Amino acid sequence: MTTGILGGGQLARMIALAGLPLAQKFIILDPSADAGAIPLGSHLQGDYDDMTLLQQLADKADVVTYEFENVPALAASYLAEHTCIYPPAKALEASQDRLVEKNFFHNLGIATAPFAHVDKLEDLQQAMHHIGYPAILKSRRFGYDGKGQFRILDESQLAEAWEAMQGVPSIVEGFVSFQREISIIAARSVSGETAFYPLSENIHRGGILRVTHCCHDDPMQQQAEAYANKLFEALDYVGVVALELFEVNGELLANEFAPRVHNSGHWTIEGAETSQFENHMRAILDLPLGATTACGFSAMVNFIGASAPDDDILSIENCHLHLYDKAPRKGRKVAHATIRSDDKALFEQSLTKLIALADQYDDS
Amino acid sequence: MTTGILGGGQLARMIALAGLPLAQKFIILDPSADAGAIPLGSHLQGDYDDMTLLQQLADKADVVTYEFENVPALAASYLAEHTCIYPPAKALEASQDRLVEKNFFHNLGIATAPFAHVDKLEDLQQAMHHIGYPAILKSRRFGYDGKGQFRILDESQLAEAWEAMQGVPSIVEGFVSFQREISIIAARSVSGETAFYPLSENIHRGGILRVTHCCHDDPMQQQAEAYANKLFEALDYVGVVALELFEVNGELLANEFAPRVHNSGHWTIEGAETSQFENHMRAILDLPLGATTACGFSAMVNFIGASAPDDDILSIENCHLHLYDKAPRKGRKVAHATIRSDDKALFEQSLTKLIALADQYDDS
Repeated sequence: MTTGILGGGQLARMIALAGLPLAQKFIILDPSADAGAIPLGSHLQGDYDDMTLLQQLADKADVVTYEFENVPALAASYLAEHTCIYPPAKALEASQDRLVEKNFFHNLGIATAPFAHVDKLEDLQQAMHHIGYPAILKSRRFGYDGKGQFRILDESQLAEAWEAMQGVPSIVEGFVSFQREISIIAARSVSGETAFYPLSENIHRGGILRVTHCCHDDPMQQQAEAYANKLFEALDYVGVVALELFEVNGELLANEFAPRVHNSGHWTIEGAETSQFENHMRAILDLPLGATTACGFSAMVNFIGASAPDDDILSIENCHLHLYDKAPRKGRKVAHATIRSDDKALFEQSLTKLIALADQYDDS
Repeated sequence: MTTGILGGGQLARMIALAGLPLAQKFIILDPSADAGAIPLGSHLQGDYDDMTLLQQLADKADVVTYEFENVPALAASYLAEHTCIYPPAKALEASQDRLVEKNFFHNLGIATAPFAHVDKLEDLQQAMHHIGYPAILKSRRFGYDGKGQFRILDESQLAEAWEAMQGVPSIVEGFVSFQREISIIAARSVSGETAFYPLSENIHRGGILRVTHCCHDDPMQQQAEAYANKLFEALDYVGVVALELFEVNGELLANEFAPRVHNSGHWTIEGAETSQFENHMRAILDLPLGATTACGFSAMVNFIGASAPDDDILSIENCHLHLYDKAPRKGRKVAHATIRSDDKALFEQSLTKLIALADQYDDS
């Protein structure tokens, strides 16, 4: 069997590493000649809306998946017609546009921060009457890692904020004073089998994920699973999903979801019985899903901009390194490492060292 | 960095899967066009003693390793001269010939069953006076999975046994009435750092490994580590080694060693903090070795001749499947699966199911 992947970065790379032991071959569509997943499959080099390449992909792949949610609608519908694409195109539509996404959550009864559409300055001024300060103005599309966002502290900033959006359709959201940022990684197979990982607790800085802890017996687990289940049912979902949530006084507010494997699930490679990458493959191949139970204590740390020397990282006890084969560049995720142990003291000691090392080489 | 591998079967495949997250690229020399590791690297197709290909390999690879011990001496010495080859050529010399190997053990004070060289029928007849029945006559070279062996029950079989060897230089060994077959997987890095895995307890049938259990706190651990250490020092060893041992009344007798990653260490992918494959890569790249501690209970089961349907294997709880992408063929190892769990009852229940499934599809 051959699996096609749109995008050849680190997520595709880790999907392929998990899929090869299941005897999958990979074919990767990516404009870059040296994307990290290329050594693991055959490469179609070009744009995601190149119809000739999409046709080749559909011809060769039994199933196609993707590592980013900004797949052009045309590509998704072409692939849906000529092969299988998972997660389904509906999931792309619901996640590509922040306003559509928030309305989608709302219609499913999934709580969110207050929000409103902003197509002109007047929309923003009017919305702020009920949303309240502080708030965040975001472009509706193509935002990631905090890009395309403006934080509004008071009324005096409204014009400046709207100007910063350069006229693109936007959404304003009330700023949530949360206790924790968490996410749930979950999987649903073609047959409808579901599996939910223990919650991920995430620490962001500068809009970029830095550290994720695997949570044990979290009081919010059940509510998060209920939300994920609503997504699964509404979208007739297949594959792994990541739902990002804020915890506010014992309630969960949905921030956004990604219809794909997710950075906040990287700890599952060592820290869960079956990784998110393997379960994504199992899900789209309609194989039984693997156990999602945590294996001891684990946490993941991103290396942003530059990695530390391999020697330094690997001399930390119980540290597992995942280099993405990407050239160092300011703000770019180039590697992650995970600490896993059954011994809590060892785990905490190693994690402290790893975080310090990542901070030392941070270039974000 | 680029790592070259001689041989492109499942061992090379699993080495590459472990080396890719360490940002290694792979170049694989193998005569077969569709060997299992080929999708993970660039391929030099041809024989292991093809000097043109060996030259290309030496030019492109920073370090070369191998997945089988029958590397031609010429290839090993050429690669040692023009790049790095690990484990070192000395380890190949000591392990390619059963007589040399047994003398090597003997000189290191590593106990073995009684043995003698056999170059003609008279040698065999004479040796049997002190070796005793039953005994096993083996070709000195190129034996694996029980091939090229003749079990001698009494004096009447001597001529028949020698005839079966077709005149090749041989070794006769006293049959050991052992309680257990075990192996130790250990690693030594370029810098001389060493690491030892918990013992593997192995079950063979028809000369082929079927099941390996990871042992916990085994009383033989210390003796096995001492033996492995002697090998490391004598050979100035670099990489992973597998030493196969018989336990006889609380003593360990060495059977043979393999200067490579080994089937009896496959459980380490899920069952140890760091897999034998990753530690092999760390060792030859002179990176700090990873922890070798066991993660819960684990055991590996080989699929011989044919695999079971993926669905059946993966529906077993906590089962991890590794397909080798090899066509089914009588007696061929085509896949393995590992059960791992912190819960002993679940572990045993799943392992029983997995063994039954492997037996059902066995074609050995």
